[in-house]
Amino acid sequence: MDKTEQDELKKAAAKIAADKVENGIVLGVGTGSTVKFFIDWLGQRRNEGLKLKQIVTTSSRSKKQLEDLSFKVDELCDVDQVDLTVDGADRVDDNLDGIKGGGAALTLEKNVAVNSKKNIWIVDESKLVHHLSGFKLPVEVLPISAMQVKRRFESQGLNPEFRMVDGKRLKTHYGNYILDLDISPIPVPEGLADYLDHTVGVVEHGLFLNICDEVIVAKSDGIEEIKR
Amino acid sequence: MDKTEQDELKKAAAKIAADKVENGIVLGVGTGSTVKFFIDWLGQRRNEGLKLKQIVTTSSRSKKQLEDLSFKVDELCDVDQVDLTVDGADRVDDNLDGIKGGGAALTLEKNVAVNSKKNIWIVDESKLVHHLSGFKLPVEVLPISAMQVKRRFESQGLNPEFRMVDGKRLKTHYGNYILDLDISPIPVPEGLADYLDHTVGVVEHGLFLNICDEVIVAKSDGIEEIKR
Repeated sequence: MDKTEQDELKKAAAKIAADKVENGIVLGVGTGSTVKFFIDWLGQRRNEGLKLKQIVTTSSRSKKQLEDLSFKVDELCDVDQVDLTVDGADRVDDNLDGIKGGGAALTLEKNVAVNSKKNIWIVDESKLVHHLSGFKLPVEVLPISAMQVKRRFESQGLNPEFRMVDGKRLKTHYGNYILDLDISPIPVPEGLADYLDHTVGVVEHGLFLNICDEVIVAKSDGIEEIKR
Repeated sequence: MDKTEQDELKKAAAKIAADKVENGIVLGVGTGSTVKFFIDWLGQRRNEGLKLKQIVTTSSRSKKQLEDLSFKVDELCDVDQVDLTVDGADRVDDNLDGIKGGGAALTLEKNVAVNSKKNIWIVDESKLVHHLSGFKLPVEVLPISAMQVKRRFESQGLNPEFRMVDGKRLKTHYGNYILDLDISPIPVPEGLADYLDHTVGVVEHGLFLNICDEVIVAKSDGIEEIKR
């Protein structure tokens, strides 16, 4: 499958997600190559009469694309509750649990996701796995204790490495660092999530468990919809 | 007991803590009226020959006091592990569990505390309670989802209120807000801590459980040392 074919499939998956957006809702919009097509479709649906109550997003890139299409974008703190969020994912397993945070925006992504009544992920089939694996798990940590947390993770066999950019530790939008944990596959993700939630110095982690309601997959042989 | 008498007792409690500081250790220094006396005693012990490997602190106020006494102060991320931290507490119960964060520095305080081999708290007797009570529990939350987290807390009966300063929400050193939870007494603190740890949008909370090893109490009838 070449890139044009793959893009056509992503576009088709994105259209299915866009068609699920109902009038008058508060919509959460994620980030990623498929979500980009989703935003295009959203512009088309708006031109055909779709009216949304509010839109929030998880990245400045999606925000810009939405604003270029004349959508007004609000902050999460300005909405009561998000009705539906459409986002991508870095890995999705058989339980519709996922790993997110390849773009280092996991904290905002998770805050939007857990405050959404429904979450749909649109991905291409390369992201589908039986058990969460094949992608380092990002963990956002406070700089004040980042070295201590890294050593704790090392002592637990979690193989942490700071995410680097231009030879320096990447700083997130909130001024924190990302530790990528090299564990694949991840056995009992709930247990790891629980450990990370309790670790002082961890702001958020990229395990998105019991969050996704539906995945729309762009596969080489067509689109597949998987519901929880 | 007038203020002078109370100060004399705090000073005596602080001296007992200062006498426990051993040569060559990495020392954590907290904040508070009794800790202020502790830093004074530390300066005196240094003049008498005490040598510390490194010092870290939990506030700019203590940092300044230490630097005025010519101590070099490092950041937590610059030390391997803290050997002993001496700090105050807002409440301490019969299990030596406590509430901290009255000064809005709970996140740094907890990061220093959990990375210390030993923690000693010095308090006056007004802080001692049988069960954690009589002090609102501070929770540091991300601004992006602060309203959502506040509503979650309300739905759980936790009576959250934003901490205000000059009519505006207080911003912590890390750019976050403080929600003070009005629950007194706190039944099963472990259960509440677990809930808060798992709440997306919470950076840290003021429940310090299984952290303190020893409390030195300035009481009207003298000093009491309580060990775990």
